[in-house]
Amino acid sequence: MHSFQALAEQFESRFNVRQFPDSPATLYDAAQYILQLGGKRVRPVAVLIGCELFAEINNDAFQAAKAIELFHNFSLIHDDIMDKAPLRRGLQTVHAKYGESTALLSGDVMLVVAYDQLLTIDSTNLASAISLFNKTAKEVCEGQQLDMDFERKNQVSLDEYIHMITLKTSVLLAASFQMGALIGGADAIDQQHLYDFGKNIGIAFQVQDDYLDAFGNPDKFGKQVGGDILANKKTFLLIHALEVADQKQKKELNQLIEDDASDKVEKVLSIYKACKADQWADLLKKKYFDMAMVHLDQINVTDNKKIELRKLADYLLQRDT
Amino acid sequence: MHSFQALAEQFESRFNVRQFPDSPATLYDAAQYILQLGGKRVRPVAVLIGCELFAEINNDAFQAAKAIELFHNFSLIHDDIMDKAPLRRGLQTVHAKYGESTALLSGDVMLVVAYDQLLTIDSTNLASAISLFNKTAKEVCEGQQLDMDFERKNQVSLDEYIHMITLKTSVLLAASFQMGALIGGADAIDQQHLYDFGKNIGIAFQVQDDYLDAFGNPDKFGKQVGGDILANKKTFLLIHALEVADQKQKKELNQLIEDDASDKVEKVLSIYKACKADQWADLLKKKYFDMAMVHLDQINVTDNKKIELRKLADYLLQRDT
Repeated sequence: MHSFQALAEQFESRFNVRQFPDSPATLYDAAQYILQLGGKRVRPVAVLIGCELFAEINNDAFQAAKAIELFHNFSLIHDDIMDKAPLRRGLQTVHAKYGESTALLSGDVMLVVAYDQLLTIDSTNLASAISLFNKTAKEVCEGQQLDMDFERKNQVSLDEYIHMITLKTSVLLAASFQMGALIGGADAIDQQHLYDFGKNIGIAFQVQDDYLDAFGNPDKFGKQVGGDILANKKTFLLIHALEVADQKQKKELNQLIEDDASDKVEKVLSIYKACKADQWADLLKKKYFDMAMVHLDQINVTDNKKIELRKLADYLLQRDT
Repeated sequence: MHSFQALAEQFESRFNVRQFPDSPATLYDAAQYILQLGGKRVRPVAVLIGCELFAEINNDAFQAAKAIELFHNFSLIHDDIMDKAPLRRGLQTVHAKYGESTALLSGDVMLVVAYDQLLTIDSTNLASAISLFNKTAKEVCEGQQLDMDFERKNQVSLDEYIHMITLKTSVLLAASFQMGALIGGADAIDQQHLYDFGKNIGIAFQVQDDYLDAFGNPDKFGKQVGGDILANKKTFLLIHALEVADQKQKKELNQLIEDDASDKVEKVLSIYKACKADQWADLLKKKYFDMAMVHLDQINVTDNKKIELRKLADYLLQRDT
């Protein structure tokens, strides 16, 4: 079994070349630009790890890994347009640099190129691989739409939020693992367990992300702490706090959301703490982590093959165990 | 052989049902909306005609026809966003009705659903069908980008314009015919001839479209005559006129493009006529029509099977012969 780092390097050596034709440069330079902004490449490595659980990593796995990473970047380009985000990883977003129309179009063509990568997969797995890819792609679009819908809703339940965040962020990680397993020849049951492992890790990661945005160490988190609070983003913390707060706290929270007081972050955080939303989030993250482990345990390969998956889960969820 | 009308009705009976899940309605209602704006369904019928040239029309042909029509509508949604167009077929565009973000996303999901339709195609043709679809989809994106690039260029040569318009509009018609032929079991040579037939018909159609925008009968054309002139759109007529006009005419044309005189349309038309751009366009359209016929002639099926293709070409190019 290769380590995450080793697989990330193997992937990068194949991916860190131009993925598009030269011309028209106005279109394809914009597409290539976002691929060079980097990233941890968690999803393509998940494809490779998923494959190596059942077989040696072959070219099909690398092709599927590329397709998944291209899809991820397609969704980033279009999400950034929708969010009107000026920056990604500290650099200009595609639409900020190349204009909205070219960004839109470079996202479109990147999605098509993702399907190109899948096309070289061995014919025995081709239809299943594209089918999984399609299902996931539709779910990611649905998740993004629900996220936008929620911005206009006054109240979002925890179940609704988990459903949205699962579609928007977790299913792609889940499908990456399953795609690798499928190519590695895993049966349907093992594929499903690996999918559910990835899905639960993804949800736990999102709980952690919401937590760190509020309570993280600004030096380590890499984003502005309190950014979600300032943007009135519905997060695990806000939704839970609104569910468990007493009348007075709820009134104060809603007031803080409506106004833009200078001490908004500080005041919201103190309500979160009074509601014990921080402790609750920690338990919730653990719950999803544990569910992921139950699925990992049930996969029908020897335990020593699962070591890298456990390490990846620990790494993503910042567990020092 | 079935008539265009009969095939259009057969297609419509399969297509005129909801093509998307019910939920989230905010996403899928927007996608379904544009499909109900209608249209002549030329491209899906081209798939069916292409298939019937070589075999009986089967379910795979209908699936491919749906995929092509979904792709076409995906590109319309995104083009309308880029063009900031308020209306399509006299009704609100998707982004005007549902907002830009939802329009963008409903286009994305429609492209994925197009691939879903292709997935049911028999495994012997699956990879070839998706490969043709991908090549075409990339070309359509490239064509749209070049069209935007040309808006910012002072001079565009006739060759550059033909290249752009071929990618933006003709290759999809060409690929529709080829897709049908592929599913009908045609060999590579016949597929290529049918593709080239479609491509040349598509270019001839665009020459005609540019011509009618300038010289058409307003009652018949269905769009504002002179719209291209008012929008300073680079068309076959403008590009040719700038190539053949004398110094005085060229200066006047460029002046008219820069200013917005109230008699702009009238004055530009009189220069077009003085340059004989109208007669030239008619000959150019005939040239592409004739090339299409040369390719049709070479397809290795009996002549009586080609009757519907000739009728379709005559209908699209308004030939009463």
